[in-house]
Amino acid sequence: MSAARGKFISLEGGEGAGKSTLLAGLHEHITAQHVALVQTREPGGTPLGEAVRAIVLDPARRDMVAEAELLLMFASRAQLVREVIEPALAAGQWVLCDRFTDASYAYQGGGRGQPLERIAELERWAADGLQPDLTLLLDLPVSTGRARAAGRGEADRIEVEADAFFERVRSAYRTRAAAEPARFRVIDASQPAVAVLQSAIAALTPLLAEHAL
Amino acid sequence: MSAARGKFISLEGGEGAGKSTLLAGLHEHITAQHVALVQTREPGGTPLGEAVRAIVLDPARRDMVAEAELLLMFASRAQLVREVIEPALAAGQWVLCDRFTDASYAYQGGGRGQPLERIAELERWAADGLQPDLTLLLDLPVSTGRARAAGRGEADRIEVEADAFFERVRSAYRTRAAAEPARFRVIDASQPAVAVLQSAIAALTPLLAEHAL
Repeated sequence: MSAARGKFISLEGGEGAGKSTLLAGLHEHITAQHVALVQTREPGGTPLGEAVRAIVLDPARRDMVAEAELLLMFASRAQLVREVIEPALAAGQWVLCDRFTDASYAYQGGGRGQPLERIAELERWAADGLQPDLTLLLDLPVSTGRARAAGRGEADRIEVEADAFFERVRSAYRTRAAAEPARFRVIDASQPAVAVLQSAIAALTPLLAEHAL
Repeated sequence: MSAARGKFISLEGGEGAGKSTLLAGLHEHITAQHVALVQTREPGGTPLGEAVRAIVLDPARRDMVAEAELLLMFASRAQLVREVIEPALAAGQWVLCDRFTDASYAYQGGGRGQPLERIAELERWAADGLQPDLTLLLDLPVSTGRARAAGRGEADRIEVEADAFFERVRSAYRTRAAAEPARFRVIDASQPAVAVLQSAIAALTPLLAEHAL
């Protein structure tokens, strides 16, 4: 008997939204349910993807054109989908991914102004059309997130962008969440971490119940 | 008065076709005509592109999926076109490039089986639709090229492919040359290097004459 396909959960959000804390909490909660879980991230998650990540986030590469940034993000994603995510899901494992294609719509689309149809076309063939079963969007005002993120050490190439960039990113994320309410759960990330985790767990409950059947 | 737009010449060909020798000869010939020339290469040609090149050619990355390879090639190209080639042409300089988009049709299309319409779409927006004014294709039998290239030191990730791969690459190059005879000049690369250079210089003569006007 082949295992039921695993569930694919992505976590999205801007700077200082508390993604790392929530990832740790979700990892603990899901594995406590005896679900085999693969946790990964974008860009990165494979040796190739991590090499691409080092290029994309290098603060010295200030002159990277938006088209190259978009293509590098999808190069990392193309490899991650085929090397890690799809094999894991097919084997019945769950996948928890720190950012996925919605981040390209938000950062390269909203932030950098790359046309959304261009991103949709790359999503179709480079990401093999793969969609998360559930996307948790940690939403909070840009100023709050940036204040939290300040003092974390050197900012990467994207973190040094101006507030207007992150306002466009946030707006693009919220637009996507509104367009796909069945897949997205928007979580108010200005709440205490424990409340954020509770909201995320509540969103996961139907998937875990399905899994337990 | 603004300078006339420069000419863009690309050089294509498989392993052992004598590209490096020809590039040196062309560089000397063109600059001797008092033409300002920018010589560059793909993948690479910019700091970003050279970082991508190191990933793409690394023999250790045997598991790179074809989609990621294609996207990385166009990431390097998107940067090269905007950072180097278009500014040089606009300033009236000539550009001599060791491989350009035809190489993606040949290697990622013919060699790896990526759909040609996918490559054409990337060419349109990632490479800004830029086409060389003249493409010199060094053509020779795969076995001849590989015999010449043997003993050059460690083969890169693409050079280790089987003969059948390079037969598809050669065939794709020849198909493109046949479809665009005005842009391509196919040169028999099994000739002595001096004859190859003479053929290439003959192909350049009309462009140089135009430039001198």
